[in-house]
Amino acid sequence: MRVPPMSSRFLDACRRRPTDVRPVWFMRQAGRYMKQYREIRAKNSILEICKRPDLAAQVTLQPVEVLDVDAAIIFADLLLPIEPMGLRLKFVAGEGPQIDNPIRTSHDVDTLSTANTDELGYVGESIQIVSKALAGKVPVIGFVGAPFTMASYMIEGGASRNFINTKTLMYRDETLWRRLMGKLVDVLGPFAMLQVAAGARAIQVFDSWVGALGADDYVRYVAPYSRALIERIRSTGVPVIHFGTGAAGYFRELHAAGGDVMGVDWRLNIDQAWMDISYRSAIQGNLDPAALLAPLPELKTKVHELLKRTGTRPGHIFNLGHGILPETPVENVKAVVQMVREFKP
Amino acid sequence: MRVPPMSSRFLDACRRRPTDVRPVWFMRQAGRYMKQYREIRAKNSILEICKRPDLAAQVTLQPVEVLDVDAAIIFADLLLPIEPMGLRLKFVAGEGPQIDNPIRTSHDVDTLSTANTDELGYVGESIQIVSKALAGKVPVIGFVGAPFTMASYMIEGGASRNFINTKTLMYRDETLWRRLMGKLVDVLGPFAMLQVAAGARAIQVFDSWVGALGADDYVRYVAPYSRALIERIRSTGVPVIHFGTGAAGYFRELHAAGGDVMGVDWRLNIDQAWMDISYRSAIQGNLDPAALLAPLPELKTKVHELLKRTGTRPGHIFNLGHGILPETPVENVKAVVQMVREFKP
Repeated sequence: MRVPPMSSRFLDACRRRPTDVRPVWFMRQAGRYMKQYREIRAKNSILEICKRPDLAAQVTLQPVEVLDVDAAIIFADLLLPIEPMGLRLKFVAGEGPQIDNPIRTSHDVDTLSTANTDELGYVGESIQIVSKALAGKVPVIGFVGAPFTMASYMIEGGASRNFINTKTLMYRDETLWRRLMGKLVDVLGPFAMLQVAAGARAIQVFDSWVGALGADDYVRYVAPYSRALIERIRSTGVPVIHFGTGAAGYFRELHAAGGDVMGVDWRLNIDQAWMDISYRSAIQGNLDPAALLAPLPELKTKVHELLKRTGTRPGHIFNLGHGILPETPVENVKAVVQMVREFKP
Repeated sequence: MRVPPMSSRFLDACRRRPTDVRPVWFMRQAGRYMKQYREIRAKNSILEICKRPDLAAQVTLQPVEVLDVDAAIIFADLLLPIEPMGLRLKFVAGEGPQIDNPIRTSHDVDTLSTANTDELGYVGESIQIVSKALAGKVPVIGFVGAPFTMASYMIEGGASRNFINTKTLMYRDETLWRRLMGKLVDVLGPFAMLQVAAGARAIQVFDSWVGALGADDYVRYVAPYSRALIERIRSTGVPVIHFGTGAAGYFRELHAAGGDVMGVDWRLNIDQAWMDISYRSAIQGNLDPAALLAPLPELKTKVHELLKRTGTRPGHIFNLGHGILPETPVENVKAVVQMVREFKP
């Protein structure tokens, strides 16, 4: 499968090609900060929205319309792939996703299915609707969780502070850990490819929890699987955005695992990070999401500082260092788009 | 006030002087992983232990006896200083510290007292008992929270995910923020000096939540106050350990704020971090606390890897990258001390 070419500011930047102005989109641009989203969420659970392609498409398209951003990102949840693997997923109000039957034993890992990725076809349908509606105006980004983030959710059963179950399994039974990570690549790869086949023009790989690890453990237990997944996705011809949080201490190691674009949180200087990888990838980020709660003059200073740091070199995609906070005024998000568009280097 | 000299492996390493073997102690070495501690905790709240110098001294001394570490760290809580400032502190089971009256307004900051640090005299009494009991065998480390960590606790009222209230105050009213940070230095400095006067031979400054910030915000809003606090403590002649977590992306900026010893979490390579500051401070850390849940051969590999990374250069203090986890087998902690002692470079 090779995707046909498409002209886009965002895709050009992914390839480190020059663009007229800096492309901009926001992680969690379809989310609670937006009135239109809250109206749909009031009547539907997150899982219901994900599984109804018409609704998922609707919330995906809202921010493109309202904010005029340079890419849409499909509305979905990182954990959707665990359902066809055999785990039971639910969302608990105020606590986020929880898994009824987390995996802890060799038997648990053995019984995980890797054969039912087509059950995630509803994500593909959502992407098809969005692609059609956008009609080439801006590309659709698909996404998957990175193997470590998926594995730790599956083992902990939900959010975790110390990742004790995950690390204990990793340290005590490396063979089992590697079997689990291998199975995840076998599910996440086809899931990403399903999204590309449906029209996604880039795939973001979210390693949201990778910052739980030390550098050596990342290299030994995790990087090979991130690399395998990223390579599989890249074989389709779409660019991969490799995003990790809390991992400033081993950004070079993350980069070594691949990514046409490296996504960075706000805890590092983006120019330093870019230099550290010798500009061999594009870079995406890294405004602190809390900056959008600042008064406009202060926000503008921060946006300009970031644009100056990343300079005139092609390959910077403006984004936050994490998802938009629910408390964010939508006017401030719009203002950031305008600041980026109007910026003169 | 100048403290008299004392011979100690730990203090020598703080000054980057050669030692016979690598000094070792553990953050939260007085804690729930230890049976003797749990027995006392079963009958007393954390605040009760802190405020009864006999009990605080007892739990401080337990790990020195059981583990044979190279330093004692006084049992206390980072948030104790907020009580004499006028805030009400309580510990909620499973949720950690909570503040009944967090600060949000200019009036809240104005009414914070900086004059009652002597109410923290019970911490000094605990240190006196411990110093006397140790009789120079190993030194006692005192500690304070860094201004940012204290300010964010006081503003959020407890643990926080996104530090929205803190950052909003910082961005929207910089003058108020600076007044708060200044007041904190005026309380934390004398509190640290009280501990030194009581016998503490080093002070660790914990910036546990500094990783919430981006690099630019750290430099602008926080570093001047950390620097002022550290300088005040250093004027007593004791070494300061400056410990930040989640801040690998701006470790050099943290170092620029001072510290005879830089404490690092496990999310970065300690040798890389040490080189990044041109070895101008000693360095402390950085084993992942979860490594102590690994089987002994794996744990040993990790301990040796860390000792090799830090090499034969004087100035490395062996420690974890964060506090000992409650689930940790005490035998494994003892084993780490032995591994460090027996290591031949």
